[in-house]
Amino acid sequence: MKISVLGCGRWGTFLAWYANRVGHEVMLWGRESSKHYLQLKESRMNDYVTLPQDIMLSNSLEAAVSFGEIIIISISAQELRSFAHSISLQKGLKDKIFVLCMKGIEANTGKRLSQVFSEEIGISSNIGIWVGPGHVQDFVREIPNCMVIGSDHIEVTKKIVESLNSSLIRFYYGQDLIGNEIGAAAKNVIGIAAGMLDGLCYSSLKGALMARGTREISRLVRAMGGNDTTIYGLSHLGDYEATLFSLHSHNRRFGQALITGEPFDKLAEGVSTVKALQYLGQKYEVELPICNAVYEMIFENADPKEKLIDLFLRPIKFEF
Amino acid sequence: MKISVLGCGRWGTFLAWYANRVGHEVMLWGRESSKHYLQLKESRMNDYVTLPQDIMLSNSLEAAVSFGEIIIISISAQELRSFAHSISLQKGLKDKIFVLCMKGIEANTGKRLSQVFSEEIGISSNIGIWVGPGHVQDFVREIPNCMVIGSDHIEVTKKIVESLNSSLIRFYYGQDLIGNEIGAAAKNVIGIAAGMLDGLCYSSLKGALMARGTREISRLVRAMGGNDTTIYGLSHLGDYEATLFSLHSHNRRFGQALITGEPFDKLAEGVSTVKALQYLGQKYEVELPICNAVYEMIFENADPKEKLIDLFLRPIKFEF
Repeated sequence: MKISVLGCGRWGTFLAWYANRVGHEVMLWGRESSKHYLQLKESRMNDYVTLPQDIMLSNSLEAAVSFGEIIIISISAQELRSFAHSISLQKGLKDKIFVLCMKGIEANTGKRLSQVFSEEIGISSNIGIWVGPGHVQDFVREIPNCMVIGSDHIEVTKKIVESLNSSLIRFYYGQDLIGNEIGAAAKNVIGIAAGMLDGLCYSSLKGALMARGTREISRLVRAMGGNDTTIYGLSHLGDYEATLFSLHSHNRRFGQALITGEPFDKLAEGVSTVKALQYLGQKYEVELPICNAVYEMIFENADPKEKLIDLFLRPIKFEF
Repeated sequence: MKISVLGCGRWGTFLAWYANRVGHEVMLWGRESSKHYLQLKESRMNDYVTLPQDIMLSNSLEAAVSFGEIIIISISAQELRSFAHSISLQKGLKDKIFVLCMKGIEANTGKRLSQVFSEEIGISSNIGIWVGPGHVQDFVREIPNCMVIGSDHIEVTKKIVESLNSSLIRFYYGQDLIGNEIGAAAKNVIGIAAGMLDGLCYSSLKGALMARGTREISRLVRAMGGNDTTIYGLSHLGDYEATLFSLHSHNRRFGQALITGEPFDKLAEGVSTVKALQYLGQKYEVELPICNAVYEMIFENADPKEKLIDLFLRPIKFEF
C-alpha cells in the first residue's frame, strides 16, 4: 500500500520508518524550510532512525497527499487547523484515509483534533487517530508496545490496524473516540504535574497523582459524552509509564524544569492542552483540580509547592 | 492515646516511630527470638529509623495487647491466622481497635485479612485496615504521601484517622473494604509482573500493564461484591508508583530477579497473593490473565518472555 506521512519531526520520521518496515511504499513530507526536513534531505537520518533509500522525501504537499492511500499526520497539534486547510485545497480527499498521530486539543476552542480536521477538510468519515504509549527511543531498540487506533467508523479503524499492525506495535481498536482523544491529550497535563512532583522531590506522590488524575479526566470524558472507563485504557492510563515516569517525556521534563529552573526548550504539548482542558471543565461544569493547578502554576505564577501540597495533602477525607 | 504496634520489621518499626511522632504513647512488640527485635533492643535503631527513648519495647504479647487502645498489626500476612489466634487468648479485646497494615490475602482460603482476623478473635466490629502508597525510605526523609484507612464501620475508620493523621501521612476514609483489601494485596502481583518486564528490558510495557492490571482486578472486586472503581483509587492504582516503579519494592525486585537470575531473598508477599488470586478467580469465575501468567511463571516454570509477549502482544483486537 502507498502511505504518506506528513510531518518529519521525531515522531513523523519514525512513522515513515515504521510504515516502510511493515512493507509499504512510503513518502515522507516536510516543509522545505524545516530544519528536520533539511537534515533528512542531506543525511537521511536524525537522532533516532536512518531512513532506507526507498522512502521518498518530498516538500510538495500536493505530491504527498496525492501519493498515499493512507495519510498519516504528525505535526504540532495547535497548527493542525491551518495545515488541514492547506490539505483541503488538494484533490481526491474523499478516497483517502487520514490518521492523526498527535496528542492535543485545540487550545482556544477545546475541540478534539478529529473535529478540527474534519471541519477543515469537510469530510468526517475517513479520519482515524493513532494514540497510546510508545517512545521512538524504545521502538528503534525493538522494544514493542501496544497502541490504539480509533475512529467513528469501525471499518476505517480496521483498515488502519490491518495496514500497520506488527509485532513491534500491537494495535487495539479504539471504542470511544471522545475518550481516546481527550485521554491522549490530557495525559500530557498529568505528565507536567508529574514532572513538577519530581522537581520538588515528591516523586512518591505520583501514585496519588495517577489515582486522582485518571479520576478527574474520566469525569470530563463522561460529561462530554464519552465512556469514562476509556481513561483507564491504553490512551490515557496506559500512556502514564511513557509520560509520568520516562526520562524521554517532554511534558514531564517541562514540569520538572519549571520547578528546578533548568532550561528546557522542547515542545510540551500539555501547555496548550491545559488551556483547552480549563475551557472544557468550565463548559461541561466538571471540576478538574489537577488541571486547574497546572494551569495556575504555568500561567498565573502560583507557588508550585503550596499548590501541590494543597492538592494532595489537603484534608479531603473521602476518596470518592 | 496509647498505641501498640505488633511486629517490628521494617514497616512495624516505622509505624511505632510514626505513632510516637504524632504524639502517642507507644509500645512496640516483637518476638523475643526475632532478629529485628534483638537489634532494636540492643541499638534502638534499624536501617531506617532510630526509636526515641519513650517508645517502649516489649516481647510480651499480653503486655502489648493490654497496653494499647489502638493496636496496629504488621506481621507476615500468611502468619496472621495463627498470630490472631494468640491474640484471641488475651483479655479485653472488644474495647480495642485493631488496625491491619499488611497487604495480602490468605493463600489457601482466598480470605481477606480482616476476615481472617475477625474469624480468629471472634469480633468484627473493631477492625480497620491501613493501606495505600508510601515507602519507609521516603517518609523518614519527610516526603509525604496519601494513604487509606478502611473498615466496615465509619466510626472506627474515623477514630483511626483522627488518631493518626498528620502532614506526613494524609489519610482518606476507605469506602469499600473488599476493594481496598483485594486491591492492596493484588498490587503486589502486578508489581511482580512489572519486575519481570523490567528484567526483560520491556519496561515500557508497564503502561499497558497498568491499564490491563487495574482492569482485571477491578472485575474480580466487582464479582466479590466490592465497588470496581475502588481499584482506581489509592489502595491499588495509587500504590503502583511505589510498587511498579520503585527501586524499594520487594515485589518488583522479586519479579526482576526471577528473570535475571540475580539472588533476592526478601519476602515478596505477592507470591502468596497470586495463589489466593488464582483461587478467587476460579471461585468467582473471573478471568485474571495477568495473575494467571504470574502464577504460571512462578510455580509452573512457564517461559517469561513467551508468556509476557503472549499477554501483551497477542492479537486481541478490542481493548474493552
